[in-house]
Amino acid sequence: MKSTIAVLGAGSWGTALAIVLADNGHRVKLWGRRKEQMDEINRNHKNSRYLPDVVLSDLIEADDEMANVVDNVDTVLIVTPTKSMRQVLGELRLHLKKPTTIIHASKGIEPRTSKRISEIIEEELPPSILKTVVVLSGPSHAEEVSQRKPTTVTVSSKKIEEAKAVQDLFINQYFRVYTNDDLVGVEIGGALKNIIALGAGISDGLGYGDNAKAALITRGLSEITRLGIQLGAHPLTFTGLAGMGDLIVTCTSVHSRNWRAGNMLGKGSTLEETLESMGMIVEGVRTTEAAYLLSEKEGVEMPITEAIYHVLFNHKDPKDAVDELMSRDRRHEYHDIDEMFTSKWKD
Amino acid sequence: MKSTIAVLGAGSWGTALAIVLADNGHRVKLWGRRKEQMDEINRNHKNSRYLPDVVLSDLIEADDEMANVVDNVDTVLIVTPTKSMRQVLGELRLHLKKPTTIIHASKGIEPRTSKRISEIIEEELPPSILKTVVVLSGPSHAEEVSQRKPTTVTVSSKKIEEAKAVQDLFINQYFRVYTNDDLVGVEIGGALKNIIALGAGISDGLGYGDNAKAALITRGLSEITRLGIQLGAHPLTFTGLAGMGDLIVTCTSVHSRNWRAGNMLGKGSTLEETLESMGMIVEGVRTTEAAYLLSEKEGVEMPITEAIYHVLFNHKDPKDAVDELMSRDRRHEYHDIDEMFTSKWKD
Repeated sequence: MKSTIAVLGAGSWGTALAIVLADNGHRVKLWGRRKEQMDEINRNHKNSRYLPDVVLSDLIEADDEMANVVDNVDTVLIVTPTKSMRQVLGELRLHLKKPTTIIHASKGIEPRTSKRISEIIEEELPPSILKTVVVLSGPSHAEEVSQRKPTTVTVSSKKIEEAKAVQDLFINQYFRVYTNDDLVGVEIGGALKNIIALGAGISDGLGYGDNAKAALITRGLSEITRLGIQLGAHPLTFTGLAGMGDLIVTCTSVHSRNWRAGNMLGKGSTLEETLESMGMIVEGVRTTEAAYLLSEKEGVEMPITEAIYHVLFNHKDPKDAVDELMSRDRRHEYHDIDEMFTSKWKD
Repeated sequence: MKSTIAVLGAGSWGTALAIVLADNGHRVKLWGRRKEQMDEINRNHKNSRYLPDVVLSDLIEADDEMANVVDNVDTVLIVTPTKSMRQVLGELRLHLKKPTTIIHASKGIEPRTSKRISEIIEEELPPSILKTVVVLSGPSHAEEVSQRKPTTVTVSSKKIEEAKAVQDLFINQYFRVYTNDDLVGVEIGGALKNIIALGAGISDGLGYGDNAKAALITRGLSEITRLGIQLGAHPLTFTGLAGMGDLIVTCTSVHSRNWRAGNMLGKGSTLEETLESMGMIVEGVRTTEAAYLLSEKEGVEMPITEAIYHVLFNHKDPKDAVDELMSRDRRHEYHDIDEMFTSKWKD
């Protein structure tokens, strides 16, 4: 059955997901704040700032008025940075009139509150207009999706039937969608991988090589898993597409902005210089702060996150940070996760 | 305490591990079959064929007579291809006179028997000369280790005390060693990652991008884990250095010969052309055969291994193989592993 879906956020990822939906025959109403960009999409079927090489389907219509876009739709897909999430939801609340499925494809944690995106959505939208929240996550550079290169993602919701309905909307020959009922794990995995991507960039910036980076990614996923389990996630989620898969793509691609920011830090730039030169949002920086505070609060050991936190916010020398990580006490590989795994398994 | 250690195999990895041992003050007796190469090491402290840029310590002495190398040592490190393992062990058996610790750092499964390296060692060396077997594995390009770039590995043995003794031999500031008591998992992870590296090379050779490769690596580890659990491994091992860590480094580095072989296949070369052009052993080809037969025998679903098997041995078109993997039934992310995990956990 063909639907009409509102997509909030016309950056590269929002546009790429709109392309997938349109390829499946759905009508897409795309919202962004910049009127010229919306006009370009409607007139020339191009989003030249974010995906310059792609011609968009007629099924994708753009509008800078959110009211027009969400009017009378059953499903809204939100693809905006974590930082502007509450503001976008505040606007959306004014326009929705019936229970609506909210899909989000954003990756972050709110620093002050340590809240996940789905928790923020549930806080900002009352049950009268919120049917359910579904997250879509996984290893997916927008550029490759827009070129119809084979991509796989995970969708998750508290209600697995809702995740399956979203799977049906998106799945096609080049875009493979798996379901997973662990909403907490999928959101934590997607958000925290950006911390490790910063670390991978730092390691590469220091010239430390592929062995060091692979170890960092592996041990990084291990500490993300520890925190995730503590917050109620299922351990296996972190071995899946939204955990390991997304982590790999973000840490090994020079297209990742978190990796690029880390790389500059590893080569000696300050955080201020790095962010200024990037000129766009680096989700991992705020997420590092959020995860560090969360690990302190929950009493979960996260040595890599802690080291990156001190590099970012306390002028710690990146080389000292990596050298300290390498010289911690010798240990058994899973001295703590093993116990957590066993005690928390299938609680 | 400083020891004398015999290292059998003077390729890049054997030499790199000899460097680590010598850096820790141990005396190393290195064995290889090529007399000129052994002479070069003794005369010029160079192994120019495998690690041309490194000067070797005086603590490393080379010899092409195995009897001289293993005479009166307590520990032998074997670093030879799986294919020549039984032959090397047959020679070693003639020279050992007392119970000896055998460390191996080889990655493969014997095709005909489906045996792991430690099983082959236990078959070939009687208890009168075999004290224990310890495996050393993890994400470790030899070139980077020889340059003292930060590297982490796992050592494992049926007796954890023996693994700890080997940890003590190798650990230092740039070479970090973890212990793990899951010998089966460490050996299966190290061997089977080469199959997925072939697949990653095929995907890259087809021009399929980072999203597809990350999915292949993730789903590949998932099927390795399924087989490993069936064979008695601990699931967590596959999320560690010898599983995910080694898999990442092998699949994302152009230095990996398995990736390079896959890349040629993806670009249209036949297996014969590929192996001829590589001119050295590609462990993944034989491992694919071994794992495919093992998955049939054990009744474990391994769709990626199966697809690569048919590309290698039955002239299946690589593009068709990947397209078929992408269009399998839509599923829940862990429809089967979850059940295995739960039922096998801590058996």
